[in-house]
Amino acid sequence: MRTSQFFLSTLKEAPNEAELPSHKLMLRAGLIKRLGSGLYTWMPLGLKVLRKVEAVVRDEMNKAGALELLMPAVQPAELWQESGRWALFGPQMLKIKDRHDRDFCFGPTHEEVITDIARAEIKSYKQLPLNFFQIQTKFRDEIRPRFGVMRAREFVMKDAYSFHTEQPSLQATYDVMYKAYSNVFTRLGLKFRAVAADTGAIGGDGSHEFHVLADSGEDALAYCPSSEYAANCELAAALPPTAPRAQPAEAMRDVDTPKQTTCEQVAELLDIPLSRTVKSIVLMSTDGQLQLLLLRGDHALNEIKAGKLPGLADFRFATEEEIRGFFNCPPGFLGPVGVDRSRIRVIADHTVAAMSDFVVGANKPKFHIAGVNWTRDLPEPDLVADIRNVVAGDPSPDGKGTLEICRGIEVGHIFQLRTKYSSAMGCTYLDKDGKTQPMEMGCYGIGVSRIVGASIEQNFDEKGILFPAAMAPFVVAVVPVGYYRSEQVKEAADKLYAELLAAGVDAVLDDRDERPGVMFADMELIGIPHRITVGERGLKNGEIEYQARTDAAASTLPLAEAVAQIKQKLGM
Amino acid sequence: MRTSQFFLSTLKEAPNEAELPSHKLMLRAGLIKRLGSGLYTWMPLGLKVLRKVEAVVRDEMNKAGALELLMPAVQPAELWQESGRWALFGPQMLKIKDRHDRDFCFGPTHEEVITDIARAEIKSYKQLPLNFFQIQTKFRDEIRPRFGVMRAREFVMKDAYSFHTEQPSLQATYDVMYKAYSNVFTRLGLKFRAVAADTGAIGGDGSHEFHVLADSGEDALAYCPSSEYAANCELAAALPPTAPRAQPAEAMRDVDTPKQTTCEQVAELLDIPLSRTVKSIVLMSTDGQLQLLLLRGDHALNEIKAGKLPGLADFRFATEEEIRGFFNCPPGFLGPVGVDRSRIRVIADHTVAAMSDFVVGANKPKFHIAGVNWTRDLPEPDLVADIRNVVAGDPSPDGKGTLEICRGIEVGHIFQLRTKYSSAMGCTYLDKDGKTQPMEMGCYGIGVSRIVGASIEQNFDEKGILFPAAMAPFVVAVVPVGYYRSEQVKEAADKLYAELLAAGVDAVLDDRDERPGVMFADMELIGIPHRITVGERGLKNGEIEYQARTDAAASTLPLAEAVAQIKQKLGM
Repeated sequence: MRTSQFFLSTLKEAPNEAELPSHKLMLRAGLIKRLGSGLYTWMPLGLKVLRKVEAVVRDEMNKAGALELLMPAVQPAELWQESGRWALFGPQMLKIKDRHDRDFCFGPTHEEVITDIARAEIKSYKQLPLNFFQIQTKFRDEIRPRFGVMRAREFVMKDAYSFHTEQPSLQATYDVMYKAYSNVFTRLGLKFRAVAADTGAIGGDGSHEFHVLADSGEDALAYCPSSEYAANCELAAALPPTAPRAQPAEAMRDVDTPKQTTCEQVAELLDIPLSRTVKSIVLMSTDGQLQLLLLRGDHALNEIKAGKLPGLADFRFATEEEIRGFFNCPPGFLGPVGVDRSRIRVIADHTVAAMSDFVVGANKPKFHIAGVNWTRDLPEPDLVADIRNVVAGDPSPDGKGTLEICRGIEVGHIFQLRTKYSSAMGCTYLDKDGKTQPMEMGCYGIGVSRIVGASIEQNFDEKGILFPAAMAPFVVAVVPVGYYRSEQVKEAADKLYAELLAAGVDAVLDDRDERPGVMFADMELIGIPHRITVGERGLKNGEIEYQARTDAAASTLPLAEAVAQIKQKLGM
Repeated sequence: MRTSQFFLSTLKEAPNEAELPSHKLMLRAGLIKRLGSGLYTWMPLGLKVLRKVEAVVRDEMNKAGALELLMPAVQPAELWQESGRWALFGPQMLKIKDRHDRDFCFGPTHEEVITDIARAEIKSYKQLPLNFFQIQTKFRDEIRPRFGVMRAREFVMKDAYSFHTEQPSLQATYDVMYKAYSNVFTRLGLKFRAVAADTGAIGGDGSHEFHVLADSGEDALAYCPSSEYAANCELAAALPPTAPRAQPAEAMRDVDTPKQTTCEQVAELLDIPLSRTVKSIVLMSTDGQLQLLLLRGDHALNEIKAGKLPGLADFRFATEEEIRGFFNCPPGFLGPVGVDRSRIRVIADHTVAAMSDFVVGANKPKFHIAGVNWTRDLPEPDLVADIRNVVAGDPSPDGKGTLEICRGIEVGHIFQLRTKYSSAMGCTYLDKDGKTQPMEMGCYGIGVSRIVGASIEQNFDEKGILFPAAMAPFVVAVVPVGYYRSEQVKEAADKLYAELLAAGVDAVLDDRDERPGVMFADMELIGIPHRITVGERGLKNGEIEYQARTDAAASTLPLAEAVAQIKQKLGM
């Protein structure tokens, strides 16, 4: 493509609406253009990137044996009523009435439609397993769309759905899809991690999220560098300390903490490590019972884990009024010593239960207590459990090392649905004995358009985007200096460009009549991985300049070797 | 692809819902599956066909210099209010409210969105011309969706929009797109015709429809076999007769027509050609004036032409009550003789104005009048005009022969919008003199999913679909007889199939354990253009059987030549 014939539209500054680097850069590079809240046009340059991502996804789905189809975007309400999700899905679902006042939605996902197809088309165990996928525009009416294509309302998704007789067959396809997803992100040149995910009501370990790693990622991920273990931080188990609780060494004593209401402030005042302090969090269980949760000062409460404890399924945080009523003390000075255990349940995190000589609030304003020890100073906890987020350095739950923490952007999710939808919607098959059985189902999503944003979050610098070659709009930019003033430059650039195209390299020739600085800046902004500069001076020596997008400076190269070198760099 | 790994789902009978052959066959062949009224899933087999059509369309658009982008399907109401179409578009537009109660629609077309993009992105004449296209799912809430994908509510469309400084530039792109459209339909192997279309309020001759020819087509088309002329019948001009009106030869006389109320019945009774009779049609103009339109008995009123006559822009047909009130006679016996011309305007078609000795109703129940002549028996018409549809044998409006009539299905439409949208929406550029000018615009649509249905309407027989090779789901079917019982057959079929794939032929191997009759019938139903049958008997002589989908019988072919022969047949 020649830039003179392409529609290149870059901006010096990003519009104010943009917060994340990827959003700013996609607008500045002219990859997308905003139509409305959470609605973006993929401009020609951006669509090239999106299509490259789509092509990789499609190829890996085909290789995984999935069959592509295309379901309608508009879905009748009746199917969602059958599955029970018409009411459950909430306002994220864009509901529509047609001219006959019948209810429809703009599909946010397609479990219902594919299950309706499967129950009509699949009769016998002989037809199973089957795996269908589509790449399609979906709509979710986010309450606050932002981050550009990362959380748009209208977006492109690859969704696949598999059908099986038994769980082992589902597991086999699940494993194939896990591998296919890994292939997709590997081929796209992205640093990613698959992490175990919550399976909610369905249970089991049949769900993984695929995250593109990026500092701006919304999700914290825990992984073990020396093993395969990885999980969303919220789900990673914190193992109990293996070392036994040490014997008490200090006497229990009040300490003055006139203004110190947080563990950090207390530790600083007393000049002790934060890990010697214990924080107290007061919850109210569904049945109105107060709960005192104890966590080490440097640990954070994990609400998902807490919610799984007996009686805490729908807990809430206690109000200040409730706290003052029970403790006769304001928050900031609370602790477990001396509380009436018949009226409050004390739940200690495993770590806290193994501590000695720790510091807690004194249940008196402006005082904490130091040198506290279980049994000696207060009864053992009513319950000891894992109620905290893991932190870097925690032992890996698989026992094979210690955990590290990173941040990620979820771009894929695979899930063993089991018979959730098939049971609700009567999606059955006849087994070998002629008996009717609900099908086992799996579902597998990739946020195709989100990948473009996520890849930029992972790969950018102050000059612009750093696209991996597999998803760059063009992989090589040929930038001639003086194209319209030097016959020699024009001839060499045209020839080089033609040779690159002939070699199957997706090259762009910047034949705009612009200053070199403008062309360089644009090619850097839009993230072209390789650049060749053709100028009169170099040509005198039969040379061009080459610079990878990540190189600090250009190097010279014989013109005659340029195509071969580029092919080598691209692994062609 | 092997059928055992593909999802082939054919039906013996089409569901009752289907009317047209293409609709029945697409359901029977398992190309599509109905989700709701006007909503179809493209099953894997159907999607393969759709994607082949898409690929040809995309390739020709790229070659025409159009730039692909992807606009949101969901569009804010504000843009449509700017163009004035929010109210005008009517209930065909699927209107949506989001969670914040803001108005949107599921885009039925994208003039407003692309104009919004152009006015933001294009500032100077230097950036023009530009031509953008997308291939996208659209929605039109048809009052009575039917004919499967031919008139679905949700459908796939290619829509392109071009922007220009002046009309000659628009005309140049229009011509390029005209050629590109012709290339698309030619490459898809379809018999088609481009016809001049109505430009409505915009005027000029800048609009063409592209029709796939098929007996079931909704549109009648007039074309001249000896010239380039072609038009929708409704728009084709009927030239006035060149021969002068003959002198009267008969006396005017009443004839008994006791039960004859139509020209056909009168002509039969009197044993005269239908072309000697004249039919009378009574209209009411907008201002309440009666109009008596006269057409030759074998001609049909063209309401579009009539609507363009002075005072008839919003005409309606007169009620029976109005007719009886004026003529004192029931419909079926009306005529122009003796009417009070101060109270009714007589409009004669050119053909009628040139007739002599014709037959009309007598304005008396059960009587007609024969031997009627202008001037002698009644005053000349108040207005002579072209108010009829052309018929086969009429002179071509370009003067280069006579017209033929055929039927077509509209699959494409190109249109010079001129400044309709750019003026309404302030889509301007700065010209060479720095003056603000509205852009000239063109729009160019192809009904991508409709093409699949239309191609089947054109190409089917009693066995099923006859896909042209360019859009067949597979171009060659390899059908082994006894695949699971003869090692020799299995080996030969697998090898042949592998060789075809290696040669770049999109082949399918029917490796189902089915009787040959079942496999043949399925491959015929789904429209595979070429079939190779591999059987034990033939293999003994080193032969296979070849049969084109359109061949009456199979012929034998040396196995060793099979691949080369197929490639030759495919023009590879």
